Amino acid sequence: MTFGRILVGLVLLCNTQLIWADEVFTPPWVFQPLPAQPPIPENNPLTAEKIALGKQLFFDARLSATGTHSCNSCHNLSSGGDDGLPTPVGVNSRTGERNTLTIWNAAFHNVFNWVGDTTSLEQQAGQHILDAKIMGMADANAVINKISAIAAYDAEFKSIFAKEGVSLETIGKALASYVRTLNTHNSAHDRFLRGDKQATSKAAQRGFKEFIVIGCASCHFWVNLAGPIPGLQLQQGEGFYELFPNYPGTDYERQYGLADDIGRYNYSKDETDRRMWRMPSLRNIAITAPYFHNGSVESLGEAVSVMAKTQLRKDLSDKQIADIVTFLETLTGQFPQQSLPRLP
Amino acid sequence: MTFGRILVGLVLLCNTQLIWADEVFTPPWVFQPLPAQPPIPENNPLTAEKIALGKQLFFDARLSATGTHSCNSCHNLSSGGDDGLPTPVGVNSRTGERNTLTIWNAAFHNVFNWVGDTTSLEQQAGQHILDAKIMGMADANAVINKISAIAAYDAEFKSIFAKEGVSLETIGKALASYVRTLNTHNSAHDRFLRGDKQATSKAAQRGFKEFIVIGCASCHFWVNLAGPIPGLQLQQGEGFYELFPNYPGTDYERQYGLADDIGRYNYSKDETDRRMWRMPSLRNIAITAPYFHNGSVESLGEAVSVMAKTQLRKDLSDKQIADIVTFLETLTGQFPQQSLPRLP
Repeated sequence: MTFGRILVGLVLLCNTQLIWADEVFTPPWVFQPLPAQPPIPENNPLTAEKIALGKQLFFDARLSATGTHSCNSCHNLSSGGDDGLPTPVGVNSRTGERNTLTIWNAAFHNVFNWVGDTTSLEQQAGQHILDAKIMGMADANAVINKISAIAAYDAEFKSIFAKEGVSLETIGKALASYVRTLNTHNSAHDRFLRGDKQATSKAAQRGFKEFIVIGCASCHFWVNLAGPIPGLQLQQGEGFYELFPNYPGTDYERQYGLADDIGRYNYSKDETDRRMWRMPSLRNIAITAPYFHNGSVESLGEAVSVMAKTQLRKDLSDKQIADIVTFLETLTGQFPQQSLPRLP
Repeated sequence: MTFGRILVGLVLLCNTQLIWADEVFTPPWVFQPLPAQPPIPENNPLTAEKIALGKQLFFDARLSATGTHSCNSCHNLSSGGDDGLPTPVGVNSRTGERNTLTIWNAAFHNVFNWVGDTTSLEQQAGQHILDAKIMGMADANAVINKISAIAAYDAEFKSIFAKEGVSLETIGKALASYVRTLNTHNSAHDRFLRGDKQATSKAAQRGFKEFIVIGCASCHFWVNLAGPIPGLQLQQGEGFYELFPNYPGTDYERQYGLADDIGRYNYSKDETDRRMWRMPSLRNIAITAPYFHNGSVESLGEAVSVMAKTQLRKDLSDKQIADIVTFLETLTGQFPQQSLPRLP
């Protein structure tokens, strides 16, 4: 995917000509407020019934082998949609491989997990249910048997998915439907982009400028600050990946073990995927510490410093870091209030 | 506590004279609808601020050593206020000793846990936070350090508990305040007791009669079907305990290991406490399987059968069991909708 490269060109242009004009922020270029709704796939239309069923499943620990872990156990909707841990603790205290990505605004991604090894939210849900280190269900049949044995679930599935009833696919469809409602609109950043120049502080606006000028925006752009989004610039299954660390051999790399995991190569075994990672969103980044695929960095300022050095070969001043952090804090959105579902 | 013995007398009277009169159900005798509010201790007045803080803490996994277990992990408010497991799975996959008791209507108890080893909700919260098999925090200081390091919590505590700030006691006070709001009013049983004879089916009413006549009500009586309640018949710290199994040596005892755990004796080392247990409530019993202190029995009908045999030396017919189960199902109350808190 070469969209990022185009942006690098834009940023370099900004950099050399010191352009800082409103058009940099103006749709359709570079940044956009979060759309009202994420892309909805044709094979899973969004309905109130599917959302309600998906919400029950999201909070139901019976989807795990031990009955102890629901989706919400790691994708905690009371906070940043993550677990606040370096790596997740799954069933039987097994540890997941990589830092839990936030579930908020996940539907604006096109491929999922740190290495893009699933290409739909529907598929991603089933993958985590069967992952021995996460929810640990033995296989699809085990899931089907457990859920269809709960009479009210069985009836709900038969009502919504008349042909299929309970299956890993329909569980995925219901969960994906609920997740598509979990979007954090109206951050200060969104209000700024819509023209309210008072929505963010001067420091945040300086930080936003730095963010573009030094090159962060060459990858962290568009509505989710994670590159192009599905249905618009990306085709089904196509991901937006970047190299990390881009400049190998830094002290940070050694200190935080940033190159110990070779990323998408582990999944694809394609040499060009070595140390390639799906672009993570920066929305709500201020409340989703710790950072990076291995959760090795606790503070957001340090994460900014690491990124500047490993990706852009830049040493930032304390003021630059502080301003960028202030900008990143404007990406915390408004969280739609969630009522706790009643489980059958 | 001899209240149960008085009731046994009443029940025997009912039994021999075949009394089935409205006064059996009429306050202040034997059964009462759940009061609007549980008893509130003088040293912890209920305030909206404490309830809100307690709710945040209830859903916050940072109260556990591993950051993985909140109160809601085991006392799941999406369902029966329990975890649906024989025994709880705490931090580091350690297993708690006894079946998780429901948190719904817990404030109508006077002593807590299966053996009454804590005598206030405030104390019970702190006990579970420090229990190595549950939330696993090392000591009170570890809890204080972790919570007061979260700036918004620190400010909330200082605002609400000006003198004390964050302490295990104030955490307990906030949590207890929230738990005192978790009551399930207006079950069919409550409506029946208030005079609506259509609120429950004929089978449920037959079951209720059986429940009294065969002797279940000699222990499972009053508002929470768990004996006398605090502030009314019980003094601070006084519990209502019964022997289980009451008739030792049954096949059920062997099959389900019912006497393997010697109950309150483990805590008090008092010989008279051997196999004594604090009376569990029957409210919402139909949705809190599995049953008994060891969670050894999966079905409610089997649990009724076990109780009749081990406690009353009675073999019930299938119809008696079915009717009593139908009555027990009328004890499922209305669950006050819970919005998910935002965590600081």
